[in-house]
Amino acid sequence: MPVQEINPDLQKERNTASFNPNEFSVWWAGGPAQYEQKKALEKMFLDDPELKDDLPISYLSHKELYEHSLRKACVIGEKIRKLRAEGEDGVDTYNALLGGSLGAAILKEGNPLTLHYVMFVPTIMGQGTMEQQVEWLSKAWDCEIIGTYAQTELGHGTFLRGLETRADYDEKTQEFVINSPTITAYKWWPGGLGHTANHAVVVAQLYTKGEFRGLAPFIVQLRHSDTHEPLPGIDIGDIGTKLGMKAVNNGYLGLKNVRVPLKNMLMKNQQVLPDGTYVAPKNSVLTYGTMMFVRCALIRDTAQSLAKASTIATRYAAVRRQSPIDPNQPEPQIMDHTTQQLKLFPQIAKAIVFKATGDGIWNMYNVLSGEIEQGNLDRLPEMHALSCCLKAICSADAAAGVETSRLACGGHGFLEVSNFPTIYGMTTAVCTYEGENTVMLLQTARYLVKVYGQALNGEKLVPTVAYINDFLKERQFVNFDGSLECIVRAFHYVAANKVRIAYERIEQRRRQGHSAEVAANLCGIELTQAADLHGRAFLAQSAYNEILAVSRAVSPALADVLKVVLELYLIDACLNRIGNFLRFIDLTDDDVSKLELRLESCLKSLRPNAVALVDSFDLHDRVLDSALGAYDGNVYDHIFESAKKNPLNKEPVNASFHKYLKPFMKAHL
Amino acid sequence: MPVQEINPDLQKERNTASFNPNEFSVWWAGGPAQYEQKKALEKMFLDDPELKDDLPISYLSHKELYEHSLRKACVIGEKIRKLRAEGEDGVDTYNALLGGSLGAAILKEGNPLTLHYVMFVPTIMGQGTMEQQVEWLSKAWDCEIIGTYAQTELGHGTFLRGLETRADYDEKTQEFVINSPTITAYKWWPGGLGHTANHAVVVAQLYTKGEFRGLAPFIVQLRHSDTHEPLPGIDIGDIGTKLGMKAVNNGYLGLKNVRVPLKNMLMKNQQVLPDGTYVAPKNSVLTYGTMMFVRCALIRDTAQSLAKASTIATRYAAVRRQSPIDPNQPEPQIMDHTTQQLKLFPQIAKAIVFKATGDGIWNMYNVLSGEIEQGNLDRLPEMHALSCCLKAICSADAAAGVETSRLACGGHGFLEVSNFPTIYGMTTAVCTYEGENTVMLLQTARYLVKVYGQALNGEKLVPTVAYINDFLKERQFVNFDGSLECIVRAFHYVAANKVRIAYERIEQRRRQGHSAEVAANLCGIELTQAADLHGRAFLAQSAYNEILAVSRAVSPALADVLKVVLELYLIDACLNRIGNFLRFIDLTDDDVSKLELRLESCLKSLRPNAVALVDSFDLHDRVLDSALGAYDGNVYDHIFESAKKNPLNKEPVNASFHKYLKPFMKAHL
Repeated sequence: MPVQEINPDLQKERNTASFNPNEFSVWWAGGPAQYEQKKALEKMFLDDPELKDDLPISYLSHKELYEHSLRKACVIGEKIRKLRAEGEDGVDTYNALLGGSLGAAILKEGNPLTLHYVMFVPTIMGQGTMEQQVEWLSKAWDCEIIGTYAQTELGHGTFLRGLETRADYDEKTQEFVINSPTITAYKWWPGGLGHTANHAVVVAQLYTKGEFRGLAPFIVQLRHSDTHEPLPGIDIGDIGTKLGMKAVNNGYLGLKNVRVPLKNMLMKNQQVLPDGTYVAPKNSVLTYGTMMFVRCALIRDTAQSLAKASTIATRYAAVRRQSPIDPNQPEPQIMDHTTQQLKLFPQIAKAIVFKATGDGIWNMYNVLSGEIEQGNLDRLPEMHALSCCLKAICSADAAAGVETSRLACGGHGFLEVSNFPTIYGMTTAVCTYEGENTVMLLQTARYLVKVYGQALNGEKLVPTVAYINDFLKERQFVNFDGSLECIVRAFHYVAANKVRIAYERIEQRRRQGHSAEVAANLCGIELTQAADLHGRAFLAQSAYNEILAVSRAVSPALADVLKVVLELYLIDACLNRIGNFLRFIDLTDDDVSKLELRLESCLKSLRPNAVALVDSFDLHDRVLDSALGAYDGNVYDHIFESAKKNPLNKEPVNASFHKYLKPFMKAHL
Repeated sequence: MPVQEINPDLQKERNTASFNPNEFSVWWAGGPAQYEQKKALEKMFLDDPELKDDLPISYLSHKELYEHSLRKACVIGEKIRKLRAEGEDGVDTYNALLGGSLGAAILKEGNPLTLHYVMFVPTIMGQGTMEQQVEWLSKAWDCEIIGTYAQTELGHGTFLRGLETRADYDEKTQEFVINSPTITAYKWWPGGLGHTANHAVVVAQLYTKGEFRGLAPFIVQLRHSDTHEPLPGIDIGDIGTKLGMKAVNNGYLGLKNVRVPLKNMLMKNQQVLPDGTYVAPKNSVLTYGTMMFVRCALIRDTAQSLAKASTIATRYAAVRRQSPIDPNQPEPQIMDHTTQQLKLFPQIAKAIVFKATGDGIWNMYNVLSGEIEQGNLDRLPEMHALSCCLKAICSADAAAGVETSRLACGGHGFLEVSNFPTIYGMTTAVCTYEGENTVMLLQTARYLVKVYGQALNGEKLVPTVAYINDFLKERQFVNFDGSLECIVRAFHYVAANKVRIAYERIEQRRRQGHSAEVAANLCGIELTQAADLHGRAFLAQSAYNEILAVSRAVSPALADVLKVVLELYLIDACLNRIGNFLRFIDLTDDDVSKLELRLESCLKSLRPNAVALVDSFDLHDRVLDSALGAYDGNVYDHIFESAKKNPLNKEPVNASFHKYLKPFMKAHL
C-alpha cells in the first residue's frame, strides 16, 4: 500500500494544537527510558512479518482463530525466550506483551499462552518450596512444559470455600487422588486449558487422614508430553465462543481418580508430611498481596482501554463531517457538535486520571510491600479496600466509556473494523474477572462501615479514610465556592455521608432484629453506593494531586492543557453524581448552573487540542487496529479496503445463490 | 436429549408465586387471539427441522454464517409465500418473523431477506404510482426479484441532503444515468445488498435539464436475474463483520454510469416527464409518517430485548448459588442478594412499562394516521417529537439493561451460549439505526424549545406538552408527598424546568451575539437533557396510566404484582435522576431516604414473583436460546452440552500442537 497523505482535517488539528504531543507521550510511557523501550519492543514485535495478519481475524471461525493464535503465541514465546537469554525480559516487557497493548496488537483476541506466564510460573514461584522451584521453574520458564491455573469451577467462582474439586491423600502410595465429584466441580475458564497447556496448578479441597484441611494447590500433568493426548482420568476441552478474548482457549477440566505424587502439592505455605500429617499455613497475608498487585495493574489497563477508544473516536470525529450547525454552511467536523464533545472529551480525561491514579496506587503498593516484608501489616486492610473499589469503578467507567466512544462513531462504530467490538469485549471482561465488581464494592464497604464505627468511638483513622474523622468533627459543609479544591473536598464530604447512611441503616436493621449478616445484605445498595463514592472521592483527590504535580514538571503549554483536563474531569464527575451533592450540601440551582457552564467551557477549551491529546497517547496503528482511528485519518479508504478483503467478496456470486436462493425465487414460476 | 426435570430451585419459585403467569402471558401477547396466533406460528416455524441448528452458529466463519442464514431465510420465505397464498400473512406475522422474537429464534444474527420485505416492498407501495405498483409489486411479493433499500452512504447518514449519489436525466434516451462520484458516495449498510438482492431502491440526487431537483428513489437492477452476476457498472459486496446482526449481509454499492429507464423512478410524490420537466412533490408529511411508524415499532422491540435479557438473568439467579449471606448457612440463590435484585427487577419493570407505552403510542399513531388522511396535521409535530425521544430513551435503557443483566450472570454471562452477546448486538444497534439517538433527542428538543416560547406567549399547548403551561402558571412544586401520582407530576415539573433552562440558555447565547443555530449547538447538552426528561416524564405518566388500567382488568392477584412493578419502575426512575428532583423541588434528605427504603421494599415484594413474572413473558426456549435461561433451569447441563459441541473438542489434540506448539516446546532441547 502506498504511503498515504494525512487527511487534511486531521492535519489541520495537529497544526493548530497548542502543545507538543511528544512531551506528553514521554510522560505517558513512564519516562524517557520507558519510552525508548516501548519503541524498541514495538519495532521488534510489530515489524516482524510472522506477526502480521493477512486477513482480518474476524473472518475466521472459532477453530481457525485458535490455530492462528497459537501459531503467533509460539512466535512471541520464541522471542521472549531470546529476550530472556539476553537478560532483557523485565516485568514491563511481560506486561506489554501479555497483558498490555502490544500483546493486543498482535493477538487482539488474546493469547492462549498468557496464563502460563502470568499465573502458572508465578504460582510456582510464590507457593512452591525451594525444591519445588528447582524441579519445575526452569522447565516452565523454558516452556518445556506449558501450564495454566485452574481454580474457578463451573458452579463456583467468588466463594472459594464452595469449590468442590477434592484431593484425598493416600499415605500408602504417598499420592493425592484428585476428583471432580459433580459436573459443577469441573474446572471452568482457565486460559489455555482447552488444548494448549499440558500442566495445570489445580486448586482443590485437601483431605488427609480423612479430615478436611482447606484449599491447596497441586501441579497436575494433563496431557502426554509427546503426543499431547489427554492423560487417563482427564476430561478436557475448550469452553466455546465468548463476547471477547475469543482466542484465549479458556478450558474445562474434569478429573477422575487422577493421582499425583506428594511432591506435586505446592508446600511453601502449608505442608502434608509423608504420613499424612497436615501442617497449617501461618497466615494468608501473601495471597492478599497478589490480588492487590493484580488489581492495581488492572487500573492501568482500564486507562489504556479508554486511551484506545478515545483515540479512535476523536480522530474519527475530526474526519467525519455531518449535520450542518448553520444550514448555510457545509457539514462540520462532527467534533464541532457540543454533544459530541461531551461524549469524547470526558473519556480522554478519564484515561489520563486513571493512568495517574494507577501510577500512584502502584507506588503505594510498593511502599506497602516493603512494610509487609518487615512484618508491618497496618495498612493492608486500607489498601485492600481501596484496590477493590478502584478496580470496580475504573473497569465499569472504562467499559461504559468504550461504548460511549463507539456509539459516538455512529454506524461505522458498529463495524468490527472500527475495533470497538474487540476493545469492548476486552474491557468489559475486567468488570467480572479478578473479583466481580459488586463483590469488590461490598468488600470495600464492609471496611468503610467498620472504620466508621471506629471513628464514632473517637479513633483516628488511616490516611485514605481520615476524611471520615473530619466529617464527624464538623457534620456540615460550608462555603461551596466551586473551586477544584472545594469539589474534591465535597466529594469526601458526600462519601462520608454515604458511609454514614450505610452504617445507620445497618444499625436500624439490626434494631429490627436482623443478624449483622442479614442486615448487611438488606443494606447492599447503601453499601455499594458508599464504596462507589469512597472510590470516586479518592479518584478526585488523586486527579487533583497527580495532575497538578505533573503540571508543575512540564512545559507551560502542556501544563495549561492538563489543567483543563483536570477541571473537566472533576466537574464532569461532580455533575454525574450531582444528586448526592445536592442532597448533602446546600447547593442552589445557580451553583449547578455555574458548574454546567464551566463544563461547557472546558469542552470548548479542549476542542483545539483534542486530536493532539489523543496523539499523545502514542498508540501504534497496529495497537489501534482501527479503520476509523488510524494516524493518517484516511477513514473511508481504510473501511473500503477492509471490506474488499472480506472472503465473501472474493467470488462475485456466492454458491448459496444457486443452492438456495435461485430455486426459491423460481419456485412458483 | 431426554426430557429433563425442572431444576428444583426454579420449581420452588414457580410453586410459590402468587399469581398465574398465563393470565399475564395473554395480556403480553396482546389478547387471546394474538396469543393463539403466536403459539401457532411458533409451532409452524420452530418445530420445522429445516429451521433448527445442529451446531451453535457462533462456531461458523462469517462466510459460513451467511450461507447458513440464506438457506434458512429461503425456508422462511417459502413458508411466508404459503401463508400469503392462504391469506394468513398479517402484519403481526411479518413483525414476528422479520423484526421480532420468532425471527430472531430462527436467525439470531439476522435475516438477509428482511429488508426485501420491510423496506423494498413497502417503498414501492408507498412511493410508486399505480402503474409502478402493478409492474413491480407482484414480482416483489412473489420473490421473483429480491430487493433492498439503498440510501445511507459510506460518508453520509443522518443528513440526507449530503448524499452524493446522483441521477442525471438523459432526455435523449429517456433514462437516468446513476453514478457514485466518490468513494464516500458508495451506498453502505443496506441489508441483503451484499450478495442477496438483485434489485434495490437507490436514493439519489436528481438532476433534470441540468438542474438540481432534490432526492428521488430509483429501482435499479443490480445483478443478472439468472446468473446473479453483478451487472455492468455495479461494484457490490458485503461490508464485513459487525458487533451484531452478523448475517444480515449488509452491503456496499458503487454505481458507474448505470442507466435505468424513466419509469424506474418512483413517481407517486414527484414526477419527471419524458422531456425532463420536473414536477415537485406537494408535501413530505407522508415520509414523516413512515419514520414514526418504524420508531413506534422499535419501542416495542426494546421491550422484547429487556424481556429476553431479564428472563435469562432472573432464571439464572434462581439456580445459581453463591456467596453466603450468613456464614453458617449454605450459599443462597444469588437472587437473594439485594444488590442482585437491584440489577434484575428494574429491567423486568422496564420491559413491562416499555411494552405498555409501545402499545399506547401505537394507538396514538393509529388515531393520528386517521387524522392525517382527513387532512388534519395538527398533532404531527407533537407525535414526531415524542416518537424521537422515546426511541432514544427506550433503546439506550434497553441496551444498558441487557448489559446489566449479562454482568449479573458473572463469567457465564460472557459466554456466547448465554445468548447475551447476540441480544446486546441486536439491541444496541437500535441506538444507532433509524435515527441516531443524540440526533433524535435534539429533534425532540427543538420542538420543546419552540413550544416553550409559544407557552410564554400565552398559547395553550397540545396534550403531551401541556405540562409546560401548568409549569408556567405555578412555577413551583408544592407538597411532595411521595405518592406515585406525585412522582409522575414531579417528573413533569422537572422536565418543564429542563426545557426552561434550555430555552433560557439559548436566549442568553443569542444575546451574546450568536445566531440561533450556533446558540442551539452551544446548548446541545441542555437540549438533549430536556428531551430526555420530556420522554421520561411521558414514560412515567404512561406507566401510571397503562399499568393501572391493566390492573383494573385482571385478577386481583396479578393486579397486586403489577402495582408493585409500577411502584418499582417509578421510584427507580426517580432515584436515577434524583439530582434533577433535588435541584428543582424542595426535597429533604429524609424524603430521599424514604424513596430509597421504598425501593428496597419493592424489591423484597417482587422477589417471590420474579421467576413467575419472567415466565409470563412466555419466551420460547428457542427464542431465548440461552443455556442460562432455559425453562428447565438445568443451567450447568446446558452449558456443558454446548461446550461439548465445540468443533475444537471433536479432536483430542488440535493439529496446531504438532505444527507449532511441540516444535516451540522442544526448540531449545
